[in-house]
Amino acid sequence: MTRLQATYHIRCDGGSIDQRAQAIAVEQSVEMPLAAITDANIRREIVGRVEGVREIAAGRFEARISLSASTVGRDAGQLMNMLFGNTSMHDDVVLHDAEIPDNLAAVFGGPRHGLDGLRQRVGAGNRAMTCSAIKPQGLPPVKLAEIARRFADGGIDYIKDDHSLAEQSYAPFSDRVAAITQALRGTSAHYVPSITGDLDAMRAQVAIARDAGIGTAMVAPMVAGVSNFNRLVADNADMAFLAHPSMTGGTRISPPFLFGRLFRMLGADASIFPNHGGRFGYSPDTCRQLAAFALEKRPGLRPCVPVPAGGMTRERVAEMLAFYGVDTMLLIGGGLLEARERLTDATAAFVAEVRGWKP
Amino acid sequence: MTRLQATYHIRCDGGSIDQRAQAIAVEQSVEMPLAAITDANIRREIVGRVEGVREIAAGRFEARISLSASTVGRDAGQLMNMLFGNTSMHDDVVLHDAEIPDNLAAVFGGPRHGLDGLRQRVGAGNRAMTCSAIKPQGLPPVKLAEIARRFADGGIDYIKDDHSLAEQSYAPFSDRVAAITQALRGTSAHYVPSITGDLDAMRAQVAIARDAGIGTAMVAPMVAGVSNFNRLVADNADMAFLAHPSMTGGTRISPPFLFGRLFRMLGADASIFPNHGGRFGYSPDTCRQLAAFALEKRPGLRPCVPVPAGGMTRERVAEMLAFYGVDTMLLIGGGLLEARERLTDATAAFVAEVRGWKP
Repeated sequence: MTRLQATYHIRCDGGSIDQRAQAIAVEQSVEMPLAAITDANIRREIVGRVEGVREIAAGRFEARISLSASTVGRDAGQLMNMLFGNTSMHDDVVLHDAEIPDNLAAVFGGPRHGLDGLRQRVGAGNRAMTCSAIKPQGLPPVKLAEIARRFADGGIDYIKDDHSLAEQSYAPFSDRVAAITQALRGTSAHYVPSITGDLDAMRAQVAIARDAGIGTAMVAPMVAGVSNFNRLVADNADMAFLAHPSMTGGTRISPPFLFGRLFRMLGADASIFPNHGGRFGYSPDTCRQLAAFALEKRPGLRPCVPVPAGGMTRERVAEMLAFYGVDTMLLIGGGLLEARERLTDATAAFVAEVRGWKP
Repeated sequence: MTRLQATYHIRCDGGSIDQRAQAIAVEQSVEMPLAAITDANIRREIVGRVEGVREIAAGRFEARISLSASTVGRDAGQLMNMLFGNTSMHDDVVLHDAEIPDNLAAVFGGPRHGLDGLRQRVGAGNRAMTCSAIKPQGLPPVKLAEIARRFADGGIDYIKDDHSLAEQSYAPFSDRVAAITQALRGTSAHYVPSITGDLDAMRAQVAIARDAGIGTAMVAPMVAGVSNFNRLVADNADMAFLAHPSMTGGTRISPPFLFGRLFRMLGADASIFPNHGGRFGYSPDTCRQLAAFALEKRPGLRPCVPVPAGGMTRERVAEMLAFYGVDTMLLIGGGLLEARERLTDATAAFVAEVRGWKP
């Protein structure tokens, strides 16, 4: 029977780690005293199995636990439930990584467009792509559209909604999409609206976007629920999807796994994450590993574009490109908007630097 | 304009806390340099406002930040996004609590049945209710049904699926529901199947359950996505819903708020949580506050039943009832199942103790 391999990092003393790892294996599979399980097949296959334990630092251990793929079925939410459901409530455990068998990953489908698709849409060749964000929320559609137009006049590739833009009275989704689509006519920029709400609402918004000629959308998988994100991607194979990190909840799930592997497997064509040295606390190593996971060669899974963001500025463009290479999309939001009346110029300078960059 | 009041607990030094609180207020509202916002109304109403900061322990501060209710619209996912979306990625901040205005809470609707409704279904009068869980996963429907029947023969009120039971080949949802419903015929026990998958799948499962005469179901809101949980409740007002804590992710959102206030507001008639002294690390104070929030009088919101669980045993029944009083449902799963061939007797003893308990 095919098995998942989950890796947990655990704060623990050396005398307790074997028992602790075994407790996680039980918690994440059958959640009951093993003595009360009489079925031999369940004891052998369904009960989580501790495959290895090693000390990675003083008082910190890595435990590899395998779980039967049959416990997951075909649902992304159940995958999360099996990997980290109850154990997420133990604050001494981090879900560090998981190896998902190729046949299970194929069920989830991965990016439908990925790095190549997102580049082709904007004619980016082999260069890095550029992105900015429309904000603040509270502006009416016509004002949001003015900002979008100024980004576009600066030559930017993708213009996304800020993730705070949702179904709000001051700029309802359909009005926002209409105004911004209209404003971008004649430019080469691609608008990426933020898709929110329950699955019905998300579907309706994607349909509105498609009708307006939009081919890219943004979803926060941990807000939408991973099952619904995966379903939305599967039902809208013509659309490319950017994943937003809202509600990813700090370090309890290792960011390289969550952003680089899981969101990619569930269909993210690009994955936005907080770059090191910005407003969030990710280390360079975390970011490097995340980007490597998003792009790593994997049978049947297209590469997902790593999108470092979160307080980035034009001053950091060369450094970021040196760090990530060209298989990336650089997202600068507030760092461009603070140029105010010179927004188009600031955008053009950002775009020129990315286009002209040589390793 | 109506405002939400969110309370964050922040690890910080005293010299930086004012700046840190202001940064959270900006992150959770407009996420951009305020200097680039020219619209006076946005600066006054939409930008988050630090309402107060106080030191609660050495190096720990509480910041109260108000947000315009207009930023939320009518969507539960957007509520999470506004309360904690990006800030969830800062591991020095906990979302401690939030006051949601009554008119916004009314949009989400709260429990449709709550404490009184769950008691009436099982004729519990004013006593505490009893619950157990069918497991392990991996058993075929007929074996799961045998376990359910033995709980029922012991006189238990509610029999829920373990949260690991999903749409799996060894016990597909419809087969499981059919077998367990059949096995419980002639008993007074109520079956609570676990509802999983995307919103379409959850709806289909609820319909199957209803067709089988089932009136209660369990959903893990943080797996399903809160928007979809809230929608499922609203679309199925005849069903009572138990919320499961899978993927609630440790202490980054304060459990009393998450389980006692938020899940209740989104429609949980009962909220399962890890009791102190079991397999999880919640303190007695956390559990007491959680139960108080779930039950507190609130205009337009029925009380939600607190369901302490997570490694409970029969030996703790009197202590738990002394702690929680009778406005509760006690859930013992593995602690009954380990009785094996004496499962019915163990269940009957549990039930008798709960029914006979006097304060």
